[in-house]
Amino acid sequence: MNPDTATTESEAPERWVAYRPEIKILDCTIRDGGLINDHGFGDDFARSVYNACVAAGVDYIEIGYKASKRIYSPAQFGAWKFCDEDALRRITGDTPAPGTKISVMADAERTDYKQDILPKKKSVIDCIRVACYIHQVPMALDMLQDARDKGYDTMLQLMAVSVIPESELNAALELAAHSVAEAVYLVDSFGALYSEQVHNLISLYLKHMQGTGKEIGFHGHNNQQLAFANTIEAIVAGANRLDATINGIGRGAGNCPMELLIGFLHNPKFQIRPILQCCRDTIMPLSRDIEWGYRVPYAITGRLNQHPRPAIKFRSGPTPDDYVAFYDQMVEEE
Amino acid sequence: MNPDTATTESEAPERWVAYRPEIKILDCTIRDGGLINDHGFGDDFARSVYNACVAAGVDYIEIGYKASKRIYSPAQFGAWKFCDEDALRRITGDTPAPGTKISVMADAERTDYKQDILPKKKSVIDCIRVACYIHQVPMALDMLQDARDKGYDTMLQLMAVSVIPESELNAALELAAHSVAEAVYLVDSFGALYSEQVHNLISLYLKHMQGTGKEIGFHGHNNQQLAFANTIEAIVAGANRLDATINGIGRGAGNCPMELLIGFLHNPKFQIRPILQCCRDTIMPLSRDIEWGYRVPYAITGRLNQHPRPAIKFRSGPTPDDYVAFYDQMVEEE
Repeated sequence: MNPDTATTESEAPERWVAYRPEIKILDCTIRDGGLINDHGFGDDFARSVYNACVAAGVDYIEIGYKASKRIYSPAQFGAWKFCDEDALRRITGDTPAPGTKISVMADAERTDYKQDILPKKKSVIDCIRVACYIHQVPMALDMLQDARDKGYDTMLQLMAVSVIPESELNAALELAAHSVAEAVYLVDSFGALYSEQVHNLISLYLKHMQGTGKEIGFHGHNNQQLAFANTIEAIVAGANRLDATINGIGRGAGNCPMELLIGFLHNPKFQIRPILQCCRDTIMPLSRDIEWGYRVPYAITGRLNQHPRPAIKFRSGPTPDDYVAFYDQMVEEE
Repeated sequence: MNPDTATTESEAPERWVAYRPEIKILDCTIRDGGLINDHGFGDDFARSVYNACVAAGVDYIEIGYKASKRIYSPAQFGAWKFCDEDALRRITGDTPAPGTKISVMADAERTDYKQDILPKKKSVIDCIRVACYIHQVPMALDMLQDARDKGYDTMLQLMAVSVIPESELNAALELAAHSVAEAVYLVDSFGALYSEQVHNLISLYLKHMQGTGKEIGFHGHNNQQLAFANTIEAIVAGANRLDATINGIGRGAGNCPMELLIGFLHNPKFQIRPILQCCRDTIMPLSRDIEWGYRVPYAITGRLNQHPRPAIKFRSGPTPDDYVAFYDQMVEEE
C-alpha cells in the first residue's frame, strides 16, 4: 500500500493483498481505558494487556500518564495516572520485550515533566507522547525538547483538531515540523470527523511535515461509529502511526478496536489471536462494571462537534437512555 | 454535494454545508430487525416505528417480507414475514401518509409473488424490493416485471456482492440495467467490504446504469463497524438510495444507524428527534430480550468474508464470549 497510489482505482486490488511495512500501531487500552475508572486497573489487568500486545506484535503500548501529583492525588487515582518507574517495572520487568516500545502520555500543564520524567537510561519508557490543546503548543514544544534531551523518542498529540481554526492549525503544524517530535498525531477528540475530513487533514499534516522525515499518526473516537473507518481513511491518506484499544475500550464511545485494525492490516507480524484472548479474559469481564462503546448521546455530541463530557455525565445520571431529553438539552445549549 | 466533484478537495467545504436533494432514505427497522425474532414484533412496535419514520421525513419504510406460507408457517413467524394487506393496514391505516412510501421485500424462490402480491390498487404497498443471490437473477427479473405490471415501484437487492465474481457481477448489472427496477442496491450482506471497495463497486454500478435513469442504493452491515462509514462512502461515490435502521437494529451486528445517517445528511426535510424518541421508547427496551450490534464474532466472519450465520449461532450458545474458540473454529474451517 503506497499512499501515492491511494486514489488510483486500477491499483486497488494489489493494495488489498499487500501491506505497508511502515505502519506502526500503538495500543492505548490501559491509558485511554483508564480514563473510565481514574486509572484504577490492577497490575494483573495491565500485565495481561502488555503481554497480549507483545505477543500480537504491537509496536507501542501506552500504559498511562505522567500526571502531576500536585494536581492529581495518588489517593484518588490509580497507578497508571502517574506511571512511576517501579509501577511500570511491575508490568514490563526490568528488560521489556524488544519488539514493543513503552510509551506514556504527558499532558501539557498537567505534568511536572522536568522532575517526573527520568533520564531515559533510568527508565523502561521508550517514548514520551506529549498531548496538548492548540493554546498549549509552546508548552508542548518545551516538553518534547526536555524528553528528547533525556534520550526519549517523542510524539506530539495535538488534541481536538475539529475545533482548531485553519490558520492556527497551519501555524501549529509549522512549529511541529520544526520540533523534535518523530510523529505528529491527528486527534479527533470529539469523534466529530467524517472520513473525507480525515483524508483532507492527513494530507495537510503530510504537506507540513514534508522533507522532515516525521510520521503522521491518527487517533480516532467512536462517537459516530467512525473510529475504525477514519483510521482506514488515515492510512489511505498516508498516516503510518495508528492508535487502537482492545474491543475499542476507552472513555465514552471508545476508540478504534485493535481486533478490527489488525484484521485490516495484512502485515504478517501482527497476530490477532493474543488480542482476542486478552479481550475474552481481561477486557470483556470489565463490561459488567464499566461502560464503553457507541451510545446515542455520544453520537449527538459527536455530530455537534462537542466534547463528549455532557454525554458521559448523562449516561451516569438517572435517565441514561432518555435521548430526547439529552438532545433537547444539547441543542438548547448551542 | 455533487458526486462528480466528490474527490475534488477544494470543493469539500461547500459540500459539507450543502446537501444532495436526490438522496432518499429507507428505514428497514421492522424488516431487518424482524430477522432477529422471526418477525414477532407486535402492532404497537410497528406503529411506533412507522409513525416515527413519517414524522422524521423518511422516504421509504420497509415493513417486512412477502414470504410464502407454503415455506414458512404463520404459526412460527410473525405478521411481518408475510405482510398481509390487513396487517399492513393496521399500521398504516387505509390511507398512508403521503411523504413515506411503503416497501416490502420479496425474496427470490421464497415468495409466491404471482398470487400473494396484489394489484397495486388493492394495496397500501408502494414498492416491491426484490432480493436475490446471483444465481437467482433471472427469477428476480421475472418478479420485478410482475410487480411492475401490477403497478408497483420496484427495486432490486442483489445480495452478498462481496462473493460474486466480477464477470458475473458485470453480467448481472447489465441485466439489471435493462430491467424495470428503478433502483439497484449494492448489498454488503457479510459486512465484509471496506470503504474503498464500496467506492469502486458503486462506481461500477453507476457505469452499468448510465443513461437508464436508475438510481444506485446501498445496504450495509456493521460486522466491522463500517455500516455508517460505508454508507457515507456510497454517497460520496454517487449512491442516492440508502438503507438504515433505528439504533442500527438488525440481525447480528446490525445495520447503519438511522440517527447517524440523518445527522450526516443536511437535508432539512429529515428530522432526527422523532427517531430519537422511537429509539428511546420502542427500540432500546428490546435490548433486554434480544441482542444486536457489534460483537467480536461478527468482526471475525466479516473479516473472513463469510455469512454471519455461525457467529449468530455462537452468540446464542453456551460460551458467547469465547472469541478465541470461535476464531479457531472459523480459521480451521477455511
